[in-house]
Amino acid sequence: MAKPATVEDVARVAGVSRQTVSNVLNSPDIVREETRERVQRAISELAYRPHAAARRLRTRRSSTIGIHLDPYLGGISGVILDRFVHALTERASERGMRVLIYSARSADEEIERLADLVDGAEIDAVVVTGTFFGDPRTGWLIERDVPFVSFGRPWGGDDVYGSALAWIDVDGAAGTRAATRHLLASAGPRVGFFGWPSGSGTGDDRESGWRQAMAEAGATGPRFEAEDGLAGARSLMSEIFAEPGVLDGLDGLVCVSDAHAVGAHLAAADAGRRSLPVIGFDNTPVAEALEISSVEQSPELVAAGVLNLLMGPSGHSVAPRDRATPPEHVLVEPRLVLR
Amino acid sequence: MAKPATVEDVARVAGVSRQTVSNVLNSPDIVREETRERVQRAISELAYRPHAAARRLRTRRSSTIGIHLDPYLGGISGVILDRFVHALTERASERGMRVLIYSARSADEEIERLADLVDGAEIDAVVVTGTFFGDPRTGWLIERDVPFVSFGRPWGGDDVYGSALAWIDVDGAAGTRAATRHLLASAGPRVGFFGWPSGSGTGDDRESGWRQAMAEAGATGPRFEAEDGLAGARSLMSEIFAEPGVLDGLDGLVCVSDAHAVGAHLAAADAGRRSLPVIGFDNTPVAEALEISSVEQSPELVAAGVLNLLMGPSGHSVAPRDRATPPEHVLVEPRLVLR
Repeated sequence: MAKPATVEDVARVAGVSRQTVSNVLNSPDIVREETRERVQRAISELAYRPHAAARRLRTRRSSTIGIHLDPYLGGISGVILDRFVHALTERASERGMRVLIYSARSADEEIERLADLVDGAEIDAVVVTGTFFGDPRTGWLIERDVPFVSFGRPWGGDDVYGSALAWIDVDGAAGTRAATRHLLASAGPRVGFFGWPSGSGTGDDRESGWRQAMAEAGATGPRFEAEDGLAGARSLMSEIFAEPGVLDGLDGLVCVSDAHAVGAHLAAADAGRRSLPVIGFDNTPVAEALEISSVEQSPELVAAGVLNLLMGPSGHSVAPRDRATPPEHVLVEPRLVLR
Repeated sequence: MAKPATVEDVARVAGVSRQTVSNVLNSPDIVREETRERVQRAISELAYRPHAAARRLRTRRSSTIGIHLDPYLGGISGVILDRFVHALTERASERGMRVLIYSARSADEEIERLADLVDGAEIDAVVVTGTFFGDPRTGWLIERDVPFVSFGRPWGGDDVYGSALAWIDVDGAAGTRAATRHLLASAGPRVGFFGWPSGSGTGDDRESGWRQAMAEAGATGPRFEAEDGLAGARSLMSEIFAEPGVLDGLDGLVCVSDAHAVGAHLAAADAGRRSLPVIGFDNTPVAEALEISSVEQSPELVAAGVLNLLMGPSGHSVAPRDRATPPEHVLVEPRLVLR
């Protein structure tokens, strides 16, 4: 059977540039409808799928995966991506792959770095993190036929087009849903949510899990918000808990992050209530140290999932055209760690 | 002028194998005295220095540095090596270098990985961490003429031979000395030390800083010890603080790690004293969250120092034979962060 179609093939059949094919997959909004339809027809005819390129990796003895490493910003939650990088390195090593890390301060600079690394044959695949709708990095990777997997859903994207890209993510809503159900059962019906300001995909997703569980139980509770960061979260909750009745009227608090949970926990203790049940998100060392329950993202499972998407399941021999499944979208179910 | 001598040259002049030259530099104890002297004479005659190879890096447009990434073990202090890797990636990127990370579960497995990476020309230099006396990894790197820098002193090594290897480390004793002096001045003379069991280079070094500052002030204080880990540290101190008079007889506590400091802080609070001045080590997010003072290792300075050792100071053009200084040993002075 012929080898999988490339972006080049699609562009030729549709009579457009590679850039346009990439746009249709990555930022369909900016492509005229007529062109979009022509490209989609070519994609269907050729059974082209961007992630197909990734399968080629399996035939190599050794390959290098590139991943961007953000600057260390301190704070409580920075450790999650690091845990993922550790796990990716270990799992990759078991499969004869290396991990190359690079830094960049913007998406454009990241594309420059990627171009150097791809041109120099220093990397064979990429894990992108922190993707956003119309992300120029994913567009560039499609256009250049570089195998990649996104750690993180393409938030705000159109489902149909978005589904052309392979991604893996943690099901944040499932985590806060479990946390909320736990507090409803163990603490009482008045469970609040302490989130980030609306508008971030990750934050809104976590909030939705709380809303679902509360609606399910017919319960209501207050919603508070603060930017990420322990100090701000703590001082905001201190102000709120200073108002008469607020703290007494709260059975528990589901939080968007451990920083928020620790801030609320310390503010409640300052206000004289050391036993306010709070549940954080990320299961960081700080939550562990303070014996605060938290939703564990399991970056180790995400790392294993990324490699499965890039190379096929480990321990199985999957012939390139054996699987007719569409590009995988994997949602890892997080785990509630109770303390 | 001729190019710098290699381990090959030394072996030829001394009439021994490369392995023996490597042993003389790395594990002198296992080499017969007569052979050792012959090799040392050859080293002197040829002005051979293991780190000289590193200077070649500067002539390359782009190079890749390999570094071992330990498995993520959780806990409070794991973040330090990660901060170093982040900083190394950024500084390296500014100088046109990449960082490749690999995993290995033992020194022997690490040598296997290194052999693959060096043979495949995938890395041009190595940063080794967690070195020990007679470390087979450094021996192998010398023998193979691979440029490397050690993050960490070769603990327990002979000073003269040890000095043949380039290393950079954080001056732990200077950190605990500053911490002890601060508590002596601000809290009182009865400053204790809460360390790891004796025998670890890093732990003994940090303890020595406390001893020096106490001797300097003519003060005495108790020494406690526990294995690393918050839970154990906390329960040990809870037992100790339960004995009458112990907690009242303590003006402050310098700790070998933030885990120990947080454990002691929480144990003191449990015992009814929320104000026991403790100072940790590593300035982790947990210390920040609990507003505990800590010694900051500045991994960013270590990363910059590693690149200077591998490539020469940034912003300067240093001709290969310009500098007559011996292989650098850089001790980075840590910084006391008071809260």
